[in-house]
Amino acid sequence: MSPDPSSFASVESREASKVAALDIGSNSFHLVVARIVAGSVQILHRVKQKVRLAEGLNEDNVLQGEAKQRGLDTLKIIADSLKGFEPDSVRIVATHTLRRAVNAKEFIEEALQVLPYPIEVISGTEEARLIYSGVAHTNHDAGKRLVVDIGGGSTEFIIGEGLSPLLLRSLQMGCVSYTQRFFANGELKAKAFDKAITAAEQEMEPIEERYRRLGWQRCIGTSGTIKAIYNLVQQTQKEGEHDVPVTLKALKSLMKQFIEAGHIDKLNFPEMTEDRRPVIPAGLCVLIGLFKALKIEALEYSPAALREGVLYQMEDELHNSDIRSRTASSLATRYDVDIDQANLVLNTTLTLFNHCQKAWKLRHPDYRAILGWAALLHEVGFQINTRGVQRHSAYILQNVDMPGFNQAQQELLATLVRFHRKKIRIADIPSFTQYDKEDVYRLIVMLRLGVLLNIKRQESFLPEFEVDVEKDKLSVTFPAEWLPSKPIMTADLEREKGYQSAVGIELDVS
Amino acid sequence: MSPDPSSFASVESREASKVAALDIGSNSFHLVVARIVAGSVQILHRVKQKVRLAEGLNEDNVLQGEAKQRGLDTLKIIADSLKGFEPDSVRIVATHTLRRAVNAKEFIEEALQVLPYPIEVISGTEEARLIYSGVAHTNHDAGKRLVVDIGGGSTEFIIGEGLSPLLLRSLQMGCVSYTQRFFANGELKAKAFDKAITAAEQEMEPIEERYRRLGWQRCIGTSGTIKAIYNLVQQTQKEGEHDVPVTLKALKSLMKQFIEAGHIDKLNFPEMTEDRRPVIPAGLCVLIGLFKALKIEALEYSPAALREGVLYQMEDELHNSDIRSRTASSLATRYDVDIDQANLVLNTTLTLFNHCQKAWKLRHPDYRAILGWAALLHEVGFQINTRGVQRHSAYILQNVDMPGFNQAQQELLATLVRFHRKKIRIADIPSFTQYDKEDVYRLIVMLRLGVLLNIKRQESFLPEFEVDVEKDKLSVTFPAEWLPSKPIMTADLEREKGYQSAVGIELDVS
Repeated sequence: MSPDPSSFASVESREASKVAALDIGSNSFHLVVARIVAGSVQILHRVKQKVRLAEGLNEDNVLQGEAKQRGLDTLKIIADSLKGFEPDSVRIVATHTLRRAVNAKEFIEEALQVLPYPIEVISGTEEARLIYSGVAHTNHDAGKRLVVDIGGGSTEFIIGEGLSPLLLRSLQMGCVSYTQRFFANGELKAKAFDKAITAAEQEMEPIEERYRRLGWQRCIGTSGTIKAIYNLVQQTQKEGEHDVPVTLKALKSLMKQFIEAGHIDKLNFPEMTEDRRPVIPAGLCVLIGLFKALKIEALEYSPAALREGVLYQMEDELHNSDIRSRTASSLATRYDVDIDQANLVLNTTLTLFNHCQKAWKLRHPDYRAILGWAALLHEVGFQINTRGVQRHSAYILQNVDMPGFNQAQQELLATLVRFHRKKIRIADIPSFTQYDKEDVYRLIVMLRLGVLLNIKRQESFLPEFEVDVEKDKLSVTFPAEWLPSKPIMTADLEREKGYQSAVGIELDVS
Repeated sequence: MSPDPSSFASVESREASKVAALDIGSNSFHLVVARIVAGSVQILHRVKQKVRLAEGLNEDNVLQGEAKQRGLDTLKIIADSLKGFEPDSVRIVATHTLRRAVNAKEFIEEALQVLPYPIEVISGTEEARLIYSGVAHTNHDAGKRLVVDIGGGSTEFIIGEGLSPLLLRSLQMGCVSYTQRFFANGELKAKAFDKAITAAEQEMEPIEERYRRLGWQRCIGTSGTIKAIYNLVQQTQKEGEHDVPVTLKALKSLMKQFIEAGHIDKLNFPEMTEDRRPVIPAGLCVLIGLFKALKIEALEYSPAALREGVLYQMEDELHNSDIRSRTASSLATRYDVDIDQANLVLNTTLTLFNHCQKAWKLRHPDYRAILGWAALLHEVGFQINTRGVQRHSAYILQNVDMPGFNQAQQELLATLVRFHRKKIRIADIPSFTQYDKEDVYRLIVMLRLGVLLNIKRQESFLPEFEVDVEKDKLSVTFPAEWLPSKPIMTADLEREKGYQSAVGIELDVS
């Protein structure tokens, strides 16, 4: 199966109001191009390319072989069709397969050679949030909705109301991985269906009670698997019936037909694409598992999903209502952060950033925002313990769901916070594809100074100061009488010089 | 300096109402023997033995050499004097030096050879809590108190009111460690005093604001350092004055005398013991640092401290008001645990424990209680994320302050919770001095089953079951029709068999 260049070819070239979202899924890659007009998103163009990337994950979760190459080839074709798009009008998100792949960073670096836009790996929960956003923006109705999306490697479950998701979860089961696990030889036996359905139900078990307790009025499915099954179910209806919701009875009847066919090669449904055929039995099992675990009565289909969610998020950001700011504020509230202190640190840190940005060439658009959120959130760990707060805050920020953040952004935030005080352990600083190592060191240095200079937690303590920056040198000058009158701060800054030299910064204070 | 056998010799032999508490400090070991009568603690006997254990910590925090041997020799002498005490009427706590020593477990095992009572290493915060308890039980007055205790390796700060501590903190500075750091050659120069005082102030810097904001009416010092300084200050008073509180002015005047003496060997205060002399300049610096950082006006002295706190805790436990139960309940509340679910898990887990305890020889008195708290607290990590809850719960329980728990108890609790679901990674299970490895595996197995069997989170789901135990085999039998009607639970238990075989347990369900 090789990617089809023609399918991406019709994307037109540069136009200022145009944006594009690409979803690097485990089964397919989806590109959507849209125009944002007066706050609304008009979709111009959708393209889907079957890649089945998840097949390239070996037992050790190394992404390799033909599937990997198909992925890169497809990205190359997409690159041609995106020529002329501004960097900030394209957003590319990757899901399950790149979340799992231990060599995801290498893949992303190779991809950057052919497609000059950064690929953001997003968490399962973030994926769920964006899927819900895609559905919610295109289905306006009252009451609670359950949205399910069966992907190639993961399945997302969201209960939401209006534009707000209420419960979000991503589980590791999908039509590609379940095909490999239960239908690897292509045979369609009743026992394999039983096993796959039970496995899906087991996967749901830890969360089903919470979902059922919250409840919903409508259940909407997205994704290719659900679309294909939905279409098959429509075909079996009596003449004149259409848009019939999918029921468990209909799914069981489909399963019976599959078992009677006996082998994937013998599945013969004219309305189903060739691409879909190999993975539809496994997809059906996941869906039946969901119906049973969640006691779903009827499922509708929505064509909007992850990539539409990404587009709506881009639209949101265009209008300055950045979901990430809301996330950061909500975490600060939830973890009862001392906001006065956070603001003191934020002011000092951003003052330093403003002085240093140019000389240190801190160009990535994420830096300023993430440094600010690090200042805001560096003390969330107080909730666990004040001792070792830098470790506890980083642990929380690494593991908590952060709507709107991709994995790299969340990891950068946690890394800055991890080293906001005490020793900087270079070996514990992850390497980022999108962020330069030296830049990360410099962001750490600025946050540390912001924290240290406000250690007294009093607004009146810190005077105005001057900043002078050279390549590896940061000089901070206070009013003449200030430091000599502060022996403890002087000793603190002396110690800090030693800490900062570990990341190659010469700190000079006077 | 070798331990003096005679000082422990007068402790009398067995008597039912007698209890003993031993504090293995970084500078001295303190033994207190008391009688508990009608809920009150009558102290019969106190013995102090200078050991200066902290001197044995090398740069890599290995406890070694003469200091280590002095420690073991002293414990041997104490063992003689404790002959006839019941195991549960002796409690031994160890502080800073054994907290820091990377080979603490080996030391404790060697100690067990000479002194047949377990040594509990307690956290700095727990030490602070017990010190406060010792002071609060013997000083009955109204208003908030600041209690400070300058030990050999750590200094504790507590603000409390009545019997309740409000702020607790332990910082890593003490008279032995500061002597090594600033007065290693015995010279008493003004510059060394300045440096040591500044270092103490730096140490206080992150916490001083919170302490000063909460405030206090009285400041009480405990520990040998403060006792010695208090006594020196009394000597310098005019005739007729006594019980004069220590002030910063008095401390500075002492420092001046020390600097004039010029060397530790030339310090000549008849009222100070020979033992105290080498570490008093460093202790004075720490105390001056505290006075400056916290703006203390006057300090009184209390002879009650850590070991008295331990005694009062023993008394508490005798009356069934176990502080650890309060800690566990308060964590469950603070982390918003689903109590209905926790109780389901608790019931199943303790049912299993009751069935297995005898056959599996689970004799340690901690097991039942800690298993119960693990059941109660295994979902605290939901507060960070439901995904990977076993890791998040364990992280919280490892790092949060747990009043009443010693380090081993807290670590056992966190370990059980860490493996309450998903794979059991044997390599990640710590080895405990007090707990048998196989026992820990069995506790994990029981908690897992308690969690798994209640995965539906419904009281009505799980029927009565029978338990049959052999050496490495656990058989659970449900009513005849139950399992066949539960294919998902059957599959779950099947998978669980594989997980449990990792710790050598053959799980059999029918």
